[in-house]
Amino acid sequence: LTTPGDPSCAQRGVIDTVSGIGERALIERIRRRLPPAPAWLVVGIGDDAAVAVVDRGALQVLTTDALVEGIHFDRRFSSPFDIGYKALAVNVSDVAAMGAAPRLALLSLMLPAALELDVVDGLMDGLTGLASQIGVALAGGNITRSPGPLVVDVTVAGAVMPRKVLTRGGGRPGDRLFLTGSIGAAAAGLDWLRMHDGQTASIDPALAACVERHRRPEPRARLGAILGRTRTASACMDLSDGLADAVRQLAEASGTGAIIEASRLPVHAGAAQWFAARGQDPLTASLSGGDDYELLFAVPKRSKGRMRLVERQARGVPITFIGELTGTGALELKRDGVSNPLPHGFVHF
Amino acid sequence: LTTPGDPSCAQRGVIDTVSGIGERALIERIRRRLPPAPAWLVVGIGDDAAVAVVDRGALQVLTTDALVEGIHFDRRFSSPFDIGYKALAVNVSDVAAMGAAPRLALLSLMLPAALELDVVDGLMDGLTGLASQIGVALAGGNITRSPGPLVVDVTVAGAVMPRKVLTRGGGRPGDRLFLTGSIGAAAAGLDWLRMHDGQTASIDPALAACVERHRRPEPRARLGAILGRTRTASACMDLSDGLADAVRQLAEASGTGAIIEASRLPVHAGAAQWFAARGQDPLTASLSGGDDYELLFAVPKRSKGRMRLVERQARGVPITFIGELTGTGALELKRDGVSNPLPHGFVHF
Repeated sequence: LTTPGDPSCAQRGVIDTVSGIGERALIERIRRRLPPAPAWLVVGIGDDAAVAVVDRGALQVLTTDALVEGIHFDRRFSSPFDIGYKALAVNVSDVAAMGAAPRLALLSLMLPAALELDVVDGLMDGLTGLASQIGVALAGGNITRSPGPLVVDVTVAGAVMPRKVLTRGGGRPGDRLFLTGSIGAAAAGLDWLRMHDGQTASIDPALAACVERHRRPEPRARLGAILGRTRTASACMDLSDGLADAVRQLAEASGTGAIIEASRLPVHAGAAQWFAARGQDPLTASLSGGDDYELLFAVPKRSKGRMRLVERQARGVPITFIGELTGTGALELKRDGVSNPLPHGFVHF
Repeated sequence: LTTPGDPSCAQRGVIDTVSGIGERALIERIRRRLPPAPAWLVVGIGDDAAVAVVDRGALQVLTTDALVEGIHFDRRFSSPFDIGYKALAVNVSDVAAMGAAPRLALLSLMLPAALELDVVDGLMDGLTGLASQIGVALAGGNITRSPGPLVVDVTVAGAVMPRKVLTRGGGRPGDRLFLTGSIGAAAAGLDWLRMHDGQTASIDPALAACVERHRRPEPRARLGAILGRTRTASACMDLSDGLADAVRQLAEASGTGAIIEASRLPVHAGAAQWFAARGQDPLTASLSGGDDYELLFAVPKRSKGRMRLVERQARGVPITFIGELTGTGALELKRDGVSNPLPHGFVHF
């Protein structure tokens, strides 16, 4: 153990793990890799807490989500950069699903003593890379040792104007359901990595895209904020646990049923290829597969015009009409003219 | 594994660990134990993120801190209630040290599969017990499995008016240093528990108070908010890593030195007794011992009048004058007329 801030060991060049450096030296090392703090961040890293200016009249939006080694990621499958990126991305996705704009992040790191400092650097580069891209400032956090797994726990705070908040519960029977992007890719990518022990040397391009989706999901930050600001959607949530689960939760919270049209579902091409080759039904596998951080949202029929504006502002993010909310309590999947119960989603415990 | 929300197993009465219950059933179980959400919490537990109204004109204060089993707590020494209480307390202490009022908390739980549900219930009771006491609402969070230790990671958001923020860096030479409560008790209590393998049957009352301080430190939430609101302090921080460390950091951030008068230091009576019996210097041990969540703050000489008002509003929280900030870069401990370098604080890594 060294004294916090003691640089003597690092100067000797013998240290490359977390256990050889003090907490403060580690924080200083991280701070050096950050871009300058924005003016609205009154107090950033290094004090007891972060202090930020809030947009006048805005509501505060807050979410937290942890990535735990062995549960959410495998270091054979994801680089430190990927892990840092994804730890922020999954939280940004939650903020976007409320129709809010993400503003700042707090990072709570739990580091095994034997972890290489290079891994910490990579994590930070992934996290701050995405943060810069979407205009989020890393405002503070905490670092502690872990006697077990590497844990990257992130909190994201965002802002949304009153009456522009998108909950899960605002949908009404007759509202049309839309989905960003495609489904199944992240689950197929993880499946592929498991089958190939993380080796991607000879991977097919469609499956490489799936692996990429598992490693670095793209949170729909901009689109979520547009949906909220323009008051186009009546309800919204993200797909962390798969589309089937999201439909179920949005309908339950809204007190409606839902009918999804199988033929309209945008199954990712690589996922379709992978699941078919594995003898699984691509549609069912993609509906149930977790880790697609797309947005599912409901749009009242009267908001057709607004929806067209949103589609024009989506800048290349595909938006697909996939079904609608109904007055029954049932959750149905309509396929070749036949309605069946919607399958269940990804299970955590 | 059961489907999320499936109550069948619980109804059969065979399940008492985390692995037997779905994530959603667990969230529902937690939610049932919570008091009703305050009106300013627009969206609470159960959506993608929490949404809260911010006091008009206030700045947002945010902090996060994790308690990790095997690093920050030992389940032989602390009850689940203690752990839940402390996970919130350490974060509230950080918010108080900014002169802010804590408003809401997010909870990120990482649970080993074999953890008993009773433990989760106890954790929640400890956390929500303190939350109710100080007017903090549990607004959201996340639950995931842990392949290793139990982790309780909490984020607290608070509010403070502009120009009333207390940073570590606002001290000036000549400012007097004050300390709430006493030092050494938490370290002595932990030491005692380690020596007695957590058995407190025959403990002396003074040491029982030390054990209690280790288990359930009292965050100085009210006093921190008063110090900020009345603009009495020029700088403030909490003592998570001990007084010596806090003096060092406050002085460094303020660009000053500091001189602490040993004879004035409020060493806890139980700590003095314990360290002396163990052949350690009580003063040095108490200066370096971590986990006292007291506040150290600097007060300009011209604010003497305000300070008297603060003392009157302190409602039984002792406040002790312990030294002052100086124009030299040195950190000194003056003892029996002799100045020595201030010892170092608690070391994390």
